[in-house]
Amino acid sequence: MSAGRTYVALLHHPVYDKRGRVVATAITNLDIHDIARACRTFGLAGFFLTTPIAAQRELGSRIISHWRGGFGAVYNERRKEALEVVTIASDLDEVRARVREHAGAEPLTCATCARPRGTLTEGELLGEVRASGRPLLLLFGTGWGLTEELLGGVDRVLRPIRGGTDYNHLSVRSAVAIVLDRLFGDREAGGTDAALTDAEKST
Amino acid sequence: MSAGRTYVALLHHPVYDKRGRVVATAITNLDIHDIARACRTFGLAGFFLTTPIAAQRELGSRIISHWRGGFGAVYNERRKEALEVVTIASDLDEVRARVREHAGAEPLTCATCARPRGTLTEGELLGEVRASGRPLLLLFGTGWGLTEELLGGVDRVLRPIRGGTDYNHLSVRSAVAIVLDRLFGDREAGGTDAALTDAEKST
Repeated sequence: MSAGRTYVALLHHPVYDKRGRVVATAITNLDIHDIARACRTFGLAGFFLTTPIAAQRELGSRIISHWRGGFGAVYNERRKEALEVVTIASDLDEVRARVREHAGAEPLTCATCARPRGTLTEGELLGEVRASGRPLLLLFGTGWGLTEELLGGVDRVLRPIRGGTDYNHLSVRSAVAIVLDRLFGDREAGGTDAALTDAEKST
Repeated sequence: MSAGRTYVALLHHPVYDKRGRVVATAITNLDIHDIARACRTFGLAGFFLTTPIAAQRELGSRIISHWRGGFGAVYNERRKEALEVVTIASDLDEVRARVREHAGAEPLTCATCARPRGTLTEGELLGEVRASGRPLLLLFGTGWGLTEELLGGVDRVLRPIRGGTDYNHLSVRSAVAIVLDRLFGDREAGGTDAALTDAEKST
């Protein structure tokens, strides 16, 4: 299991809006940049910006082209490098097909959800992926989160990120950063307690 | 040591621009939202949006007021709750004074930096803070990062976030999310290696 066989897809559909209706959200410039930079930092194989709306895919392409080959590429070489990981896709089926083609195997598809739908820990996920020998495709939703129907059709759902409070409304940009760091970052032994224990040993 | 005695300050000065000049950067709407949501998720005591430019502090105030008490508060109650953690300040001295007043003690001030300046791990930091009994103030820089002069005047500098590649250009929004999760998230025993080991045990 390595980050080099892991892909992230940001889905703009099917997700809920504030009132629980299934919608397609608009793409957000900073989602593209922040998530691409996180994927590049953790050495992922790719980041799929996914929307069924053709005009939105065109907008996404224009943003990416600006930074990859336009003025942006000259202005900020590091941003160019990050945006090279981005691919634009229409839907989850297309993403899966592209991963299959790129990685040579059907991906294990794991959704993330801030609602209490999954209980799988990051370590359990890494273990399953490793045991299966399959590439990993991580799904993140925009808006008010991926729909129940979509969650019902994936292989796994990761546990929500919790921070010791009753509030779990992180931005999707923050959620991607945290999940990738939990899976692939250069962490110490520990949650808070273990970290405290280690630190106390050293004092 | 608890998140409830920890504060985050986002500094828009003194930071470097792309060419290494010391500048004051402009505040960014999504920095306020994303970092406030992360601070609220992890139960922090406060988030200081810090800029020496009066017009920028006024803009920050208007954004925060919109979500705390204006239309935004009605539209999105959860965002209101997050933005309640935000305070606007002029500089690090003011932030320190306010933390001193709020927490009743001089904070241990720890800067973050993507350049290789610090080697302190998150566990070591938690241990030091706990041993000292002081509140913790975490500093994050905008632009191309906090200046050397500022880093020279703080108590500690945290190690850079690394993701197993030579690329470490995360957005400050992502960096805050990861550092708070490393310090206060409900992590498993882990780093990648430990997580794999745990997962393998369970298969």
